[in-house]
Amino acid sequence: MNAEDRDARWMKLAIELAGKGLGLTSPNPCVGAVIVHKDQIIGSGFHEKAGLPHAERNAIADGIAKGNVGLFPDSTLYVTLEPCSTTGKTPPCTEAIIKHGFKRVVYGSEDPNPGHKGIAAEILKNAGIKVTRGVLEKECDFLIRAFRLNMMEGRSWVIAKSAMSLDGHISRSPERSQWLTGKAARSFVHTLRSECEAVMTGGNTVRMDNPSLTIRNPEKPVSPLKEQPWRIILTRNAASIPKNSICLTDEFRDRTLIVENVSNYLELLQNLYTERKISSLLLESGGVLMKEFLKAGLVDEWVGFYAPVITGGGVDGVEGGDFLEREAHLVKPSAKMFGDDVCIRGEVRYQ
Amino acid sequence: MNAEDRDARWMKLAIELAGKGLGLTSPNPCVGAVIVHKDQIIGSGFHEKAGLPHAERNAIADGIAKGNVGLFPDSTLYVTLEPCSTTGKTPPCTEAIIKHGFKRVVYGSEDPNPGHKGIAAEILKNAGIKVTRGVLEKECDFLIRAFRLNMMEGRSWVIAKSAMSLDGHISRSPERSQWLTGKAARSFVHTLRSECEAVMTGGNTVRMDNPSLTIRNPEKPVSPLKEQPWRIILTRNAASIPKNSICLTDEFRDRTLIVENVSNYLELLQNLYTERKISSLLLESGGVLMKEFLKAGLVDEWVGFYAPVITGGGVDGVEGGDFLEREAHLVKPSAKMFGDDVCIRGEVRYQ
Repeated sequence: MNAEDRDARWMKLAIELAGKGLGLTSPNPCVGAVIVHKDQIIGSGFHEKAGLPHAERNAIADGIAKGNVGLFPDSTLYVTLEPCSTTGKTPPCTEAIIKHGFKRVVYGSEDPNPGHKGIAAEILKNAGIKVTRGVLEKECDFLIRAFRLNMMEGRSWVIAKSAMSLDGHISRSPERSQWLTGKAARSFVHTLRSECEAVMTGGNTVRMDNPSLTIRNPEKPVSPLKEQPWRIILTRNAASIPKNSICLTDEFRDRTLIVENVSNYLELLQNLYTERKISSLLLESGGVLMKEFLKAGLVDEWVGFYAPVITGGGVDGVEGGDFLEREAHLVKPSAKMFGDDVCIRGEVRYQ
Repeated sequence: MNAEDRDARWMKLAIELAGKGLGLTSPNPCVGAVIVHKDQIIGSGFHEKAGLPHAERNAIADGIAKGNVGLFPDSTLYVTLEPCSTTGKTPPCTEAIIKHGFKRVVYGSEDPNPGHKGIAAEILKNAGIKVTRGVLEKECDFLIRAFRLNMMEGRSWVIAKSAMSLDGHISRSPERSQWLTGKAARSFVHTLRSECEAVMTGGNTVRMDNPSLTIRNPEKPVSPLKEQPWRIILTRNAASIPKNSICLTDEFRDRTLIVENVSNYLELLQNLYTERKISSLLLESGGVLMKEFLKAGLVDEWVGFYAPVITGGGVDGVEGGDFLEREAHLVKPSAKMFGDDVCIRGEVRYQ
C-alpha cells in the first residue's frame, strides 16, 4: 500500500466516525478524527454534539486515556475537516494539535466557515507540522453538505423524501390499507430522521395520515444524545390540525411547531436555521408541498423510494400539472435496494 | 469445489450460451448445452434459430468437430432445458444423447411443453444414463419464461418498457427536446428489442414521436440471424397514422403491422403468438395503452427506467385516474444503473 492509499484508508475510518455525529452536532458540522502511529490507531474520536469537544480533542483525549500521549510527536492526525483555529465554545483545535506536537496533520475538507477557511494549514505549518489537505475530499465534503449550505445561504438543507409506486403515486386504493414500501425502507426513513434536526410535513398529511414523524425503528443505532427531531407542520390554518393528532399529543408534543400561512419558503428555512439551528430538514410531505419546494428550488437532496407496485391511480408523489420551470436534476444519483424497494438518492441541481 | 458447485458452474455457462438465442428461437425456447469431460469443456452449443439444430445437437457436433467424440461415453452433457424426446423439425435429442452414450445428463428446467414434460429423464435412465434435474432451475426457468407462458396460455409474453422521470412522467416541457434517459439506457432498450419478436406501441406515439422502433444501437452484439422485430401499431383508425411515418416508409416497412380497433387484448396476444410466432413482445407505449394492458392483467414483465429528473408535469408513464382493481406487483424486482438512470425490472403478479 502506498502512502496515498494509506492516507485514504485512515481517512475512511475518520469519515465513518464523523457520520456518527450526523443530526447531533448542529450548528457545527460532524467531524471525525483518527490518530495513527506506525500503521496503528492510537486514538480516535468524533464530534458528538454541539458544546461538547471537537473531534480532534476527543481523539487526543482517547489517545491520552490509552497511554499513547508519548507517541503523538511521531504520529499523524487524520481529520475529516480542517481543524478550527478560533475560540468558540471550545478553544481552537490547532492549539491542542501544536501543544501535543503531532508530526503531521491530514484533513479532507476545507472549512466552509469563512472565519476558519484555509487558516489552519498555515498555523500548523508555521508550527513545524506537516500538513496534507484534500484526502478523500469529496467524501468529506459530502458529510458536511448541509453545514456548507448553512454557511453559504444561512438556511436549512432540505432532504425531500418520498415513497412512491412505480407510477409515481403515494397512495393506494382505499380498500388497501398497507404501506407501499416495506419494513427496511421505512426503517431507513427513521435513520434519515435521526440525521436531521427536523421533519416537515403539510397539514393535509397530518389530517389524512396522522403520522408520528418520530425516530422509532431506525436502521442504525441512534445516539442517546439525539433528541427527537422537530416536527414542523405547514398549514393555512392552525385550527385545522386536529387537537388529538399524534404530533400534538404524544410525549414529544413540545417538539411540534405549527407554522401558518407561509408565503416565502426561503425565509422559513432561513428562520429555521437561525432560530432553531436546524441544519438539515427532512421534507416528508404529500405532492403539493413537495411541488412548492421544488418550484422554489429549495429541495437540496432527493431520497425517493420506489415500491415495486403499479397502482394506476392515487395521489401524486409530486403534484402534476405545470412543468417545473427549472427541472430538478439529481447529480450522480445512487440506487440502493431496501428489501424489494429501490431508493434513488442524490443532490439536486436546478436547470 | 463439490459436485453440486461443479454442476452449477457448468450450467451457468450453458445458461450464458442459451441467452444468445433470446429473440431468435421462437416458437422454440432458447437452450444452451455444454459437454464436460474431467472438468474440461469438450463441446458446447446453443439453439440459434427455429428450424436449426437444438442446443444438444450443436454441442455434440462441436465436440465431434473438435475430435472429442471418443470422450463422450465418459462425459456429462449439461443442458438448460430437458432434452426433447419427440420428432419435430429435427429428430429427438434424447436419441442423439443415447447414440453417443453419454455417462450423465444434467438439466435445469423441465420442458413446459406437455408433449415433452418429464419424459426425457425416463428415456435416458432406461438407456443407462445418469440423470440429474433441476440444477440452477430458477435461472433456467427464467430464460424460458416467455416460452412457458406461450405453452400455458397460448399468447405472447408482454414486457412493458417505460422511461420516466422520478415523478412518473414520460415527457418534458416543450422547450426541452432531449430524451429523459441517457445513452446507456436507450442502448439497452435496443437489446431488449433484439430479445423480442415484436415491439408494440400506440398510434398516438407514432403520431407524436415518429419512432423507428428498430434495433440500431444495441448494448450487446446481435446475431446476424436476427430480423428486425415486428412493429405493431394499435390504433382506432389506420388512416390516422401518417403515411410518411418512419415505421411505414423505412426499409423494414414490411415488418410493420397496423392493428385497428382492438377490443380484446388477450385475443390480440393469442393471435400474435399463433399466427406470427411472437413469443415475446416489447410494449413501448404511452401511458394510456400501458394502463389498458395493466388493467387487462397482460403486462407480464416490467422494465422501468427512471431518469434522475423531476419534471413536475408531463404525460404520465401510466395514465392516472382510476386505481387498478388488481395492482401490478413486481416479484423479486432488481435495480440496475445505466449511466445515471435506474432500471427497475421484474415479473408482474396481479393482486
